[in-house]
Amino acid sequence: MDQPIFVIPLWADLTAVGLGGIQGALFASGFRGDRRLDLLGVAIIGVVMGMGGGLIRDLLLNVQPVTLQSNWYLITATVAALIGMLLAGVFQRLNTLIVVLDAVVIGMFGAFGTSKALALGLPLVPAVFVGVCAAVGGGILRDVMMGLPVAIMHVGSLYAVAAGAGCLVLAVSSAFGLALVPAAVIGIAVTTVIRILAVLFDVSLPEQRMLHRRKVAVETSAIPTVRP
Amino acid sequence: MDQPIFVIPLWADLTAVGLGGIQGALFASGFRGDRRLDLLGVAIIGVVMGMGGGLIRDLLLNVQPVTLQSNWYLITATVAALIGMLLAGVFQRLNTLIVVLDAVVIGMFGAFGTSKALALGLPLVPAVFVGVCAAVGGGILRDVMMGLPVAIMHVGSLYAVAAGAGCLVLAVSSAFGLALVPAAVIGIAVTTVIRILAVLFDVSLPEQRMLHRRKVAVETSAIPTVRP
Amino acid sequence: MDQPIFVIPLWADLTAVGLGGIQGALFASGFRGDRRLDLLGVAIIGVVMGMGGGLIRDLLLNVQPVTLQSNWYLITATVAALIGMLLAGVFQRLNTLIVVLDAVVIGMFGAFGTSKALALGLPLVPAVFVGVCAAVGGGILRDVMMGLPVAIMHVGSLYAVAAGAGCLVLAVSSAFGLALVPAAVIGIAVTTVIRILAVLFDVSLPEQRMLHRRKVAVETSAIPTVRP
Repeated sequence: MDQPIFVIPLWADLTAVGLGGIQGALFASGFRGDRRLDLLGVAIIGVVMGMGGGLIRDLLLNVQPVTLQSNWYLITATVAALIGMLLAGVFQRLNTLIVVLDAVVIGMFGAFGTSKALALGLPLVPAVFVGVCAAVGGGILRDVMMGLPVAIMHVGSLYAVAAGAGCLVLAVSSAFGLALVPAAVIGIAVTTVIRILAVLFDVSLPEQRMLHRRKVAVETSAIPTVRP
Repeated sequence: MDQPIFVIPLWADLTAVGLGGIQGALFASGFRGDRRLDLLGVAIIGVVMGMGGGLIRDLLLNVQPVTLQSNWYLITATVAALIGMLLAGVFQRLNTLIVVLDAVVIGMFGAFGTSKALALGLPLVPAVFVGVCAAVGGGILRDVMMGLPVAIMHVGSLYAVAAGAGCLVLAVSSAFGLALVPAAVIGIAVTTVIRILAVLFDVSLPEQRMLHRRKVAVETSAIPTVRP
Repeated sequence: MDQPIFVIPLWADLTAVGLGGIQGALFASGFRGDRRLDLLGVAIIGVVMGMGGGLIRDLLLNVQPVTLQSNWYLITATVAALIGMLLAGVFQRLNTLIVVLDAVVIGMFGAFGTSKALALGLPLVPAVFVGVCAAVGGGILRDVMMGLPVAIMHVGSLYAVAAGAGCLVLAVSSAFGLALVPAAVIGIAVTTVIRILAVLFDVSLPEQRMLHRRKVAVETSAIPTVRP
């Protein structure tokens, strides 16, 4: 267990970490007023978004966090966050680029999580669960640390569902004998396409249906929505 | 450590997970307005309440999370959450049933946590601590993910205390030579009874006493209180 | 991995845990109104502040949490929290003492975290990261559990930077051949001095700079700031 038999290529892992770091900084740099962040805060959010998914995956699998076994993960995430912050004005005019990048990152984190879980012997359902946690975990940590409502909990585009679908396709392909690398590529593609289509067509899950007796008054909170 | 010598029977574990999932869905389905959850959100809260306690227990003990070693945990928690959501209208008219179920679930998670910690060789005090974390951890995760104040932190019925008392009785009985199974049954009974009595008689801990110099203005937040 | 080669002396560890527990109770006892805590809530915050850093460190390193291997950690943190609560009125008139104690505690948690990470073979950058997480992790957990904005994320005195500087000096000294004990002492001193100077001269990091298009309206929240 301490020497995982499954290794994600460093370049692929660092690509996901770097893209996550940029995403985090773009998100964090949207805040003003009392919630404004200093340089360190933006860097922290970048690190959380870039490395959070991998950390959560390895905690759930009870293995050494890969992101702490090399200097490169933290350096990549931090540098990516600073670049993201400096270029936030440019990036925010390229909304399409952000959505696509984000979809690819989710797909990568999900695929890496599910692949590693399968390689360590987990059954199909928990392997998909670990992948989804890896994909959306960074965003949950970000929201919790910034004191925001956790985005994936509320009515919105099919965020976690896209991750889950990609991970499920990967796991099922693998169960039918496909090698992990092509299965992961297919899984990443499925997640990316579903996520982009969901944003394009503004799809959302049906709300829960139930007769209820009491109303809860909640104020509308204005949040910048890099991630819708 | 990777092959725990102590095994909670699957049926007992899944019972606790399923009851937790129902509880989570009942809680989540009380929200409306900006905080309303979609189907996925309700399922996530169900999974968090059903599996969160066991995950936290195994993270603290640094062992493989049992809830990820079989497909049944996630399936049970998700199905239970969906059932809870569909029947929320019925359940909410059976408030007594909810309180009793909840008390039993807390007792079970606490007893499983403390038993496993003792079986792995932890001393008495941390074993009780692990049990309490397992009992209330799901609720803490739920509150954090929903952006609510963490319920056990604020003046209310003796929630964590009931869990702690049951775990303590279990650990002390075990220290005096009682086998784990009868000790666990006694511990579950103690937690359940204290929790139900606390709700019945609306007992709460004394507030902290201190002379203070400043007042903090906080808005009243309206939260549905399945768990008071 | 299950038998760490590196052992922090129990007295030093318990000193940090006890000081952390007092800090947590002082913080928690500042709340009134809807956010007021009962006795249990204050004790929980004390335990979170006293033991949270060590727990996070050991989770990141994937080793048995040391704080759960002995009865003394929980007993120390709880007793310290109760003392802190009873004497909160006295302590709050000694603001200087609180700031100094806090700076020393941050330094100790950071130094213990980085030392243990280096001893377990982590490279320099992640070892510093683990130290910073150990130093500020308790405070983050506290803020999340109390539903407050996470203090280190927002413009303020150089809190995490002080921890990072001390951990970096420790790690670099160690890389140049200095033994861990003197390196840790130097690291603690660096963190303490930077933190105290930052409070004295009210230094803060520059805010992020970026042209932005939208403003976010956020209400001012009144929070007692034991930790500025």
